[in-house]
Amino acid sequence: MHFFSDNATPVCPPVMAAIAAADREDHGYDRDAWSARLDGAFSDLFDTPAKAIWVASGTAANSIALACLCPPYGGIVAHEEAHVAVDECGAPAFFTHGASLMTLPGEGAKLSPDAVQERLGTIRPDVHQMPARAITITNATEYGLVYTPDEVARLSTVAKTHGMGLHMDGARFANAVAHLDCDPGDITWRAGVDVLSFGCVKNGGMVGEALVFFGPQANVRAAEAERWRKRSGHLVSKGRYLAAQILTLLEDDLWLANARAANEAAQVLAANASGRLMYSVQANELFLELTAAEAASLRAQGFEFHDWGEGAARIVTNWSQDAASVEVLAQALRALG
Amino acid sequence: MHFFSDNATPVCPPVMAAIAAADREDHGYDRDAWSARLDGAFSDLFDTPAKAIWVASGTAANSIALACLCPPYGGIVAHEEAHVAVDECGAPAFFTHGASLMTLPGEGAKLSPDAVQERLGTIRPDVHQMPARAITITNATEYGLVYTPDEVARLSTVAKTHGMGLHMDGARFANAVAHLDCDPGDITWRAGVDVLSFGCVKNGGMVGEALVFFGPQANVRAAEAERWRKRSGHLVSKGRYLAAQILTLLEDDLWLANARAANEAAQVLAANASGRLMYSVQANELFLELTAAEAASLRAQGFEFHDWGEGAARIVTNWSQDAASVEVLAQALRALG
Amino acid sequence: MHFFSDNATPVCPPVMAAIAAADREDHGYDRDAWSARLDGAFSDLFDTPAKAIWVASGTAANSIALACLCPPYGGIVAHEEAHVAVDECGAPAFFTHGASLMTLPGEGAKLSPDAVQERLGTIRPDVHQMPARAITITNATEYGLVYTPDEVARLSTVAKTHGMGLHMDGARFANAVAHLDCDPGDITWRAGVDVLSFGCVKNGGMVGEALVFFGPQANVRAAEAERWRKRSGHLVSKGRYLAAQILTLLEDDLWLANARAANEAAQVLAANASGRLMYSVQANELFLELTAAEAASLRAQGFEFHDWGEGAARIVTNWSQDAASVEVLAQALRALG
Amino acid sequence: MHFFSDNATPVCPPVMAAIAAADREDHGYDRDAWSARLDGAFSDLFDTPAKAIWVASGTAANSIALACLCPPYGGIVAHEEAHVAVDECGAPAFFTHGASLMTLPGEGAKLSPDAVQERLGTIRPDVHQMPARAITITNATEYGLVYTPDEVARLSTVAKTHGMGLHMDGARFANAVAHLDCDPGDITWRAGVDVLSFGCVKNGGMVGEALVFFGPQANVRAAEAERWRKRSGHLVSKGRYLAAQILTLLEDDLWLANARAANEAAQVLAANASGRLMYSVQANELFLELTAAEAASLRAQGFEFHDWGEGAARIVTNWSQDAASVEVLAQALRALG
Repeated sequence: MHFFSDNATPVCPPVMAAIAAADREDHGYDRDAWSARLDGAFSDLFDTPAKAIWVASGTAANSIALACLCPPYGGIVAHEEAHVAVDECGAPAFFTHGASLMTLPGEGAKLSPDAVQERLGTIRPDVHQMPARAITITNATEYGLVYTPDEVARLSTVAKTHGMGLHMDGARFANAVAHLDCDPGDITWRAGVDVLSFGCVKNGGMVGEALVFFGPQANVRAAEAERWRKRSGHLVSKGRYLAAQILTLLEDDLWLANARAANEAAQVLAANASGRLMYSVQANELFLELTAAEAASLRAQGFEFHDWGEGAARIVTNWSQDAASVEVLAQALRALG
Repeated sequence: MHFFSDNATPVCPPVMAAIAAADREDHGYDRDAWSARLDGAFSDLFDTPAKAIWVASGTAANSIALACLCPPYGGIVAHEEAHVAVDECGAPAFFTHGASLMTLPGEGAKLSPDAVQERLGTIRPDVHQMPARAITITNATEYGLVYTPDEVARLSTVAKTHGMGLHMDGARFANAVAHLDCDPGDITWRAGVDVLSFGCVKNGGMVGEALVFFGPQANVRAAEAERWRKRSGHLVSKGRYLAAQILTLLEDDLWLANARAANEAAQVLAANASGRLMYSVQANELFLELTAAEAASLRAQGFEFHDWGEGAARIVTNWSQDAASVEVLAQALRALG
Repeated sequence: MHFFSDNATPVCPPVMAAIAAADREDHGYDRDAWSARLDGAFSDLFDTPAKAIWVASGTAANSIALACLCPPYGGIVAHEEAHVAVDECGAPAFFTHGASLMTLPGEGAKLSPDAVQERLGTIRPDVHQMPARAITITNATEYGLVYTPDEVARLSTVAKTHGMGLHMDGARFANAVAHLDCDPGDITWRAGVDVLSFGCVKNGGMVGEALVFFGPQANVRAAEAERWRKRSGHLVSKGRYLAAQILTLLEDDLWLANARAANEAAQVLAANASGRLMYSVQANELFLELTAAEAASLRAQGFEFHDWGEGAARIVTNWSQDAASVEVLAQALRALG
Repeated sequence: MHFFSDNATPVCPPVMAAIAAADREDHGYDRDAWSARLDGAFSDLFDTPAKAIWVASGTAANSIALACLCPPYGGIVAHEEAHVAVDECGAPAFFTHGASLMTLPGEGAKLSPDAVQERLGTIRPDVHQMPARAITITNATEYGLVYTPDEVARLSTVAKTHGMGLHMDGARFANAVAHLDCDPGDITWRAGVDVLSFGCVKNGGMVGEALVFFGPQANVRAAEAERWRKRSGHLVSKGRYLAAQILTLLEDDLWLANARAANEAAQVLAANASGRLMYSVQANELFLELTAAEAASLRAQGFEFHDWGEGAARIVTNWSQDAASVEVLAQALRALG
């Protein structure tokens, strides 16, 4: 039973059906009927005019977003354990042509407005130092915590005060919204987010993530993003298969249903491992204190998961897990004491 | 009836079946069972040890290949109408960090060894001029012509003599091999090609192209390519869906069967439009002299295709066309006289 | 006697004196008293508000100018024999992060507005092709011809019509102005030039060229240029020595006096070699038809110059040549018949 | 009396004389007689075959060195207060096309081998994380401390063990050697340094720093460096004026004499401010605890220096200071108590 990563899951059935339904002749790149609907679908979802494009991966989504917000000589404030900082082999520097990540610590991979403010205060306003031009946050974070609308808004205030853009890496955006049970606009544009990487693949998709632009600069930035998309080889030839996946996730709130299923599975596990939790469980990830012997015991029972340094482990739930297998793991965790 | 582009086609049924068959839990990125088989499958196909990785698009395949062959201060000899030169928004410069395309004319979008040799002769060997470090050719070319093994070998000799690498953009590699009825190794590694973009999407795939490295530097270059792939966001999370497509095209020579079907359809059309052909029809593209009135007449009959400047048109056939619709267009062309 | 290049000359005495006069303690980088005077000096010279910065070389000046006008995915229209295209090892691509030179032929290394217009017309306005964003011209050109105010204005009109910026590589700007005997504003901002590389080193300087920004975007572009300058290592520590050179060349129109001397020497030579001239002699360069035997004969008499392909040679005059040595060469040329 | 920065100093008289002596016609770029002597001069100085080139600034020297050691997807271990990290506006990322600085804390801006080793141990050897490929250290450091031969050697051992290159930013290399009173080879190639930025401008030069390559890869790296130099606009036209400065500093150990003068001045001041010293004074910089009132008092007496955060100040000595003015400051410091 895989609790490795939400990347390891299959494609959820309605998305697979949508791919099959898109399997007919249409124009190439993004000139097909499905891609043409993205702006409208996201504008509806977020209840504000939005521009949306697909790209092949979350790394591309994040990097293109940052390239739209930050010049080559600029800095991007990020958490030191953010995906952009530790898992993308420098993709943000590649797409931005050398912008620098200004990384900060923070509990649970969350940036605090005060820490950001303090960091910005150390930058001399001369040409010898890189000016910070963007903040990027991950919601839910790499440790499964969720920024609230208010927390996002406070970071946005810092950003706006300093003339910076705000990007949200939403690889697990659905899990964040499901946890908060809020309107998706509440933690994005209403809270000052300029660009959102709207994650699909971890949440039931196959290939393709959405990049969503909000606010008065949405059109200009999206036009620039389309250049980066083409130039980086992300304007795939048969884009309709990507657009169809994304549209299907939005239909009837499938994206939320999938995320809720994953979050609920995480809660079941959390309830049975409360003494071991390193972080509050809000989305679909659990970080547990776990001795090597305990980890071995779980693995002997058929559970697969990643170690997280020494004496700890990460367990990730996803939309595809049946209640039964989650319950088995829950009992195994409880049995460890 | 679409004769627009082989990009507009659906996914061929065995490939779609393979996607469905890959729809189970497995490791992320390229650590899945399908991706692990790529090196072997391409080594078998080409009858030589090869390294192969998938990327999301042909543009990425070409650019990553070139980044493995050419430093930022180097030049890449290419035809002035090559896809890398006119249809990728500068992707090669993006991936190589500024390498320059040294473009040359040539009938039918083919580079001639003599023209390349002459161009190389004009480069001063000082630091003020960019040294040419790679040649890239498209086979079949953008005008549907096919380089023979001997033609490739002569370009390779020029490249090797000058310490340059040789890349082949094989977006329509299958059509070239089908036309030549040769071993795929004959126009690649046996003729001196270092890296091949092995096209899948135009030939029945959905998303995903293969990049294949040959020769003694294959391992080193592929390792570098994996860095560019990650850094450019092309190491998608659920890579097995890409690998499965590629493997299926290789099985039982489906890739060749698809290309033969497309090529044969092109021959049927060519036989009925011989007076209008601007180039010999070797692969799956026809370039026809066609007046505006004639084009309008064809469109009125339901045929869709691209104009190609004034008084000319491009018709592209593909694996999915049934004989009947091809025959209808053939007759319409013949009727034009 | 050197007629190799104006790069080979010594430093003209007032400039050397200015260097010695700057040899006292002052603030580093560009925070010294001399650098602070540049904006004013160039605003006075051009009779319009201008922003001016020094950089260490003409290559840097050109490339930084282009980086201020053109995004990484843009194209820069240039003559195919322009210095930026053939003598800078791809510096414009380095500084712009991959912008592409769109090179055109043209008599005497001059771009014609019609040729530019025609080239722009071939660019499809989709994301697959790079949009042209800047035109760069060299005045005087690499073949010693001078663009008139009207010629510049016509190119500017093309640029403005297409939303492009206009850069002038003025490595020999002084020679152009001296030839035209016009106000320097007439061939720059009044004719629509946005950024000028104002050459100093070929005209009597030691190290340091000026980059001058005109028009309503001057401030914004200059601020960006200061970032590129720092980032590329051109904000040298003791900038006052560069600023002092530039200011001295401007004082009492020394820059023009030097250029006139060089141009007049060229005229003396031209008058004695009129049957051999490949281009009209307008600035300080002569391109002559010259057989190998004739070239050898001149070299045997002590004249040094560059061959220019087969059967031709380039002779460059400069501010430092005394009338006597010029006369000797003039007679030698006349003697060749 | 300036104690601001060694950047603020004039040019030392023999260097100025050398500039005047180079003021005659010669070949452009680096094809002059002075530039041709650099390899030999540095090979003699370091008693090992070395390759040396000039560039216009220390930022360029550092960045070109790093570009020769680290690919775009690599990491460069540096102190978090290193000049490359905080004072070059991201120049290393510009020249390396996106390499990442992996910064570490360390007393007195010194990297400790253990801290580097530990940091390297946290990097996963997969394509998702950037591999560390170079270490850069500053000697003397930004806080005026000097790495001993043994300290450099231990860092080099860490570098070599991990396949990394070692660069030394020697903006104040002369001060370090003067302090250690060692052979310059002892803290460079004998201790495993691959590339040295040999500082000249802070030590009596006007414009121009040397970049020196050691070891079996020296030739290959220097050839690559020449490309970066040209491409970044640092191959200035009249390079002889830069080469002449550097050669003069090497003659009769002028570079050491200048550094000794600066170091001795620093010792005089240190002896009179021992209770306030934040770091041991080894080179030519003093960091002092100094209240705002004390700073104001010194400034009222005519001393100029930089504040260093709150309650502290930086005083820099240089080759040009006469003993008298140093003594005046020494007494003023003593008078503060």
